[in-house]
Amino acid sequence: MQKIAIIGLGLLGSSLGLALKDKNVLRLGWARRKETRDEALKRGVVDECPEDINDVISRADISILCLPIPHIIEFGEKYASSFRKGSVVTDIGSVKSAITAPLEKALSPHGVSFIGSHPMAGTEKSGIEAAFAELYNGASVFITKTEKSDPAALEKVREFWKSLNMRIVEIGTAEHDDLVAHTSHLQHVAALAITEAVLDCDPETLKLRYAGCAGGFKDTSRITSSSPQMWREIIEHNQPAVLESVKEFEKRWLNIIKIIENKDYDALYKEFAKGKKMRDTWVKFRGF
Amino acid sequence: MQKIAIIGLGLLGSSLGLALKDKNVLRLGWARRKETRDEALKRGVVDECPEDINDVISRADISILCLPIPHIIEFGEKYASSFRKGSVVTDIGSVKSAITAPLEKALSPHGVSFIGSHPMAGTEKSGIEAAFAELYNGASVFITKTEKSDPAALEKVREFWKSLNMRIVEIGTAEHDDLVAHTSHLQHVAALAITEAVLDCDPETLKLRYAGCAGGFKDTSRITSSSPQMWREIIEHNQPAVLESVKEFEKRWLNIIKIIENKDYDALYKEFAKGKKMRDTWVKFRGF
Repeated sequence: MQKIAIIGLGLLGSSLGLALKDKNVLRLGWARRKETRDEALKRGVVDECPEDINDVISRADISILCLPIPHIIEFGEKYASSFRKGSVVTDIGSVKSAITAPLEKALSPHGVSFIGSHPMAGTEKSGIEAAFAELYNGASVFITKTEKSDPAALEKVREFWKSLNMRIVEIGTAEHDDLVAHTSHLQHVAALAITEAVLDCDPETLKLRYAGCAGGFKDTSRITSSSPQMWREIIEHNQPAVLESVKEFEKRWLNIIKIIENKDYDALYKEFAKGKKMRDTWVKFRGF
Repeated sequence: MQKIAIIGLGLLGSSLGLALKDKNVLRLGWARRKETRDEALKRGVVDECPEDINDVISRADISILCLPIPHIIEFGEKYASSFRKGSVVTDIGSVKSAITAPLEKALSPHGVSFIGSHPMAGTEKSGIEAAFAELYNGASVFITKTEKSDPAALEKVREFWKSLNMRIVEIGTAEHDDLVAHTSHLQHVAALAITEAVLDCDPETLKLRYAGCAGGFKDTSRITSSSPQMWREIIEHNQPAVLESVKEFEKRWLNIIKIIENKDYDALYKEFAKGKKMRDTWVKFRGF
């Protein structure tokens, strides 16, 4: 039976454990805090949850680092010699260049392969309490391939995510980071600015604003309820690409504002129609 | 039995009809197209749906104009002499100054009161097919009061929306327009710019972007799937307030981008934490 180590039992790690239940694998979990390990066993998130990290990663065929970005790097470097020789280490981090380079370097001398992964799955919630088995089902997952990637290790990681019904997309690390800056990181910056523009005001105005906020605000601002620490770390580890995506947004934004300033409402209609068509096509493709 | 005229049977008008079912009122509907009138009767959206508009508004105690903004104004002016004397006309339009001034003027010589309403209810969908009875339930509704508003008419409109379990907020027309520019119109402009920044690219890039778009993009862009014609009209009728809300967004946006450019990640954490706290407090208040 294949042994899967899930390192870190927050939303992503715990949901992974739940998704792997009944998949004929042995789920070995680990978390720093005893309370989390106890909770994970209680909820059936993993099959075993030893205190000693070596009891987990020395046995695993695949170890998935489900930790905040800086901890993924730290953990991989610190325990490089403890992973089972010939095993594969992957992760769930939202950036790939900053993680892949140091971990390839740290693990390869120990006969351990690192292949970066980034499942496009998550919610604005955090922690084991928010975990659910369906989080990964049907979502895309990026697997990053570098010139150092071992083909057999790549195949193992590919098969692993496929078993969770994910859409595999292979991509280079820099290309990945540029992509998610546009499709995800930019949105978190914009949602924050939207939230502040509406809710950061005097109490009297705020009372009215509360009444004026409906579905449009609710959805455009949802991801502002995500973990501030996580988003600080993601942007910190992908700053140049985020600033590129910011430029892309500003170009579109300034064009639309200029149209509104010029009262060119035919042009405004065309922009709205273009945006609707592009999004509706995406929605249809995704089958929402 | 109170007679309620629903003029226009799109998403808002049809949902209103469904919500009024079993409320002990006679629901008189009207739509320009015969197909829509037939469909409304078939779906039980209204009790009667005469072809002749006079058969509807000459009998109604309250007429609700559920039309696009320019049509609300046109309709009210065109049929000013046909509404029942002593009756009340209201609407569901997303702007209030541009509607209230001409309709107060047009209707008062005929002994008909106009009171503007704006229920904060809607989805990105349109048409009778998208209608559902719960659309208004628990949502806020703005009722605009001017120096010309008849207190008895105001009370009737208040009672009407209350019967649908809506939270009544009384407000001036200019104050309303400034408010919804911030809480709703701004979001539609931002969502459009987000959508274009992600999906307006060459086909090869688009294929990857599709894979990179997950929940964050889905929600921040949702309202881009709204009716382009409706949003053109809303912004056209509220241009100065929309440009004010744009300034408010840009102030926040530029501050956050500067923090990212300066790599001041402690400050970035603080912004994300502030945004999360503000939004979580709103979510708690709304009881989502």
